[in-house]
Amino acid sequence: MTPAFEQLQKQLKQLPGVGYRSAERIALHLLVEKPAQLPALVHALESAAGAVHRCTRCGNLAEEALCAVCTDPQRDHSVVCIVEHVPDLVAIERSGAYKGAYHVLHGRLSPIHGVGPADLNFEALMARIARGEVKELILALSNDVEGEATCHYLSTHLPPGSTVGISRIGFGLPSGGGVLYADSVTLRSALEGRRHYS
Amino acid sequence: MTPAFEQLQKQLKQLPGVGYRSAERIALHLLVEKPAQLPALVHALESAAGAVHRCTRCGNLAEEALCAVCTDPQRDHSVVCIVEHVPDLVAIERSGAYKGAYHVLHGRLSPIHGVGPADLNFEALMARIARGEVKELILALSNDVEGEATCHYLSTHLPPGSTVGISRIGFGLPSGGGVLYADSVTLRSALEGRRHYS
Repeated sequence: MTPAFEQLQKQLKQLPGVGYRSAERIALHLLVEKPAQLPALVHALESAAGAVHRCTRCGNLAEEALCAVCTDPQRDHSVVCIVEHVPDLVAIERSGAYKGAYHVLHGRLSPIHGVGPADLNFEALMARIARGEVKELILALSNDVEGEATCHYLSTHLPPGSTVGISRIGFGLPSGGGVLYADSVTLRSALEGRRHYS
Repeated sequence: MTPAFEQLQKQLKQLPGVGYRSAERIALHLLVEKPAQLPALVHALESAAGAVHRCTRCGNLAEEALCAVCTDPQRDHSVVCIVEHVPDLVAIERSGAYKGAYHVLHGRLSPIHGVGPADLNFEALMARIARGEVKELILALSNDVEGEATCHYLSTHLPPGSTVGISRIGFGLPSGGGVLYADSVTLRSALEGRRHYS
């Protein structure tokens, strides 16, 4: 195809879940089949890039100073769920299982990748705790070494004198998962996380 | 999420192969995870929309007056493969099985959808034939009623006195396909299209 077409295909291929063939299909769709969609897509991309930024309180996506979660009076803002990234928050919201607030770290501690405490959204969290807004922290971080390190750092660096309760989400078999198909680390987590069954 | 985010998600969801979840994932990718990719994507979209148009001879994508196929001296321009859409041309090119020229109709006759001969790229094809450039037409149109109607129209509306040979691509079992799994229409095509086997 033409150079501009190939450049577009290359850009599309970098999107998550879009391979070489899908990128070609999308590029042909936008250039040949539905050319009217192209300016609308460009407009939506530019509008979103201009309008969407981080919530100043929790780090979620927002168009005002605060995000939709932080301004929702129906939610319990004294319970704060700590997540690594915005998509984690979206996944928890989708489950409908949580009605508290969030705090998005935008990463996790990873000395090997040069990510230290100053690179994460810790300061705003400490400010929230120091203001006395928070009664409980739920650590919804990954079940791996870096998630573990981030949990450890958080639990040992709370503001002096804070009485915040801290919990970490459960690990074990996923819903619908059988013991036979679970990997060893998951089984270890599941055994360690066993609960009394009456 | 925010209104601008949802607008972007809605636009992305209209792309082929992109569902609700993929659109959310791509929007989060572009706004949160790799924001540097967003302007590059917008630039590629706008450049392609500005640079890519139809080849004046065959209707393929082109950045100059003629496309890469029409200007390739290695190809046999006296054989012209008629396709409905640019993606069909791309699929045939990908097979590596064809080294002639193309003509893209940008649709097929469909009275029920209000598509008549004037809506298709027929005139440029007739001009090519009238100039004596074409010795053979290969009709690579769909194996259905509308494809059949388009083939019939083409074969009966060639310029007066033209001696162009016309063939239609073969229909039958797809590669790797067994008789057991083929539908009745395919089996009928396959039986009608049987060839002598020595």
